[in-house]
Amino acid sequence: MQLKRMPGIGPRSAERIALWMVQSRDARPGDIALALRNVTEQVQPCAQCGFFSTEPLCEICADETRSPEILCVVEQPTDILPLERTGVFRGRYHALGGRIAPLDHIGPEDLRIDGLMERIKSESPSEVILALSSDVEGEATANYLAGLLKDSGISVTRIAQGLPAGGGLENADELTLSRALSGRRQVG
Amino acid sequence: MQLKRMPGIGPRSAERIALWMVQSRDARPGDIALALRNVTEQVQPCAQCGFFSTEPLCEICADETRSPEILCVVEQPTDILPLERTGVFRGRYHALGGRIAPLDHIGPEDLRIDGLMERIKSESPSEVILALSSDVEGEATANYLAGLLKDSGISVTRIAQGLPAGGGLENADELTLSRALSGRRQVG
Repeated sequence: MQLKRMPGIGPRSAERIALWMVQSRDARPGDIALALRNVTEQVQPCAQCGFFSTEPLCEICADETRSPEILCVVEQPTDILPLERTGVFRGRYHALGGRIAPLDHIGPEDLRIDGLMERIKSESPSEVILALSSDVEGEATANYLAGLLKDSGISVTRIAQGLPAGGGLENADELTLSRALSGRRQVG
Repeated sequence: MQLKRMPGIGPRSAERIALWMVQSRDARPGDIALALRNVTEQVQPCAQCGFFSTEPLCEICADETRSPEILCVVEQPTDILPLERTGVFRGRYHALGGRIAPLDHIGPEDLRIDGLMERIKSESPSEVILALSSDVEGEATANYLAGLLKDSGISVTRIAQGLPAGGGLENADELTLSRALSGRRQVG
């Protein structure tokens, strides 16, 4: 049974869905099948940023109200979704498709870094934000990209590491706290 | 049975401890009782910073190798423990004993803010770090203290809010991500 292969759907859920498809008049499993087929046929990575898109350029890249001044680099196209939900970023994105991870044999050449450099050359943003993970591979990737852009004259920034929103000190681990301390900012 | 009243000790653990006390030769429950009595008699808040201490001044306040130049303000004396574990902070602390929380009827006058102001006057640190929670009450307390110190000429900073160490973007909530974005820092 194919339904069970979907994430978060176990044998019991799959059975429930299957019975609903057979018994309910409103189910219209043909519509669902069509939608699923359309996904693979129509959704492809945006030629520019790597985000999901049904057109050659994704909605964000095609949106002319978004500033080309700030380019936000993320690891995966899925990382764009939570950043968009914040509603505070009005620039553009570039998804690398992963991060430098020597242990997994992923080097810079396996990522969309050439595409990033071409975009930076043609769009000449004033700031590149590295919105990468705060783990070892994220650090390595950020350092690599910062090295590439060092002499470009572009401001290269990284999103802050520290206490998550709503958290107290007692729940924070040592590494998070020491980064929160070293990243402290002037108030007011 | 008194053992059950301790946090993390349920009825079964309490019974196991009680039987061990009665049966084992090495148990020496008298020593444990003495230690427990000593806790209440000897441990008191440090007269200066509010941390736990057996002397009038705690070990940190009495340590002359710690810089009086940086004063780190925390909510609870227990918040000093995780900060000390980071090993990166070599200044001194001041525990407020709580935070401003109007809904719980805790105002500035209920906290050790007068003591903080006196210390700042006599020790004249060059920087005051506000290491408060990243929730609404922590924000309110930080804003209140920043207001008090506005014209003092002292640099007032707050520990960073953002991605916790080791975390990826997909696990971060929207508020954390928007603070991580707005708190981004220059690389290199």
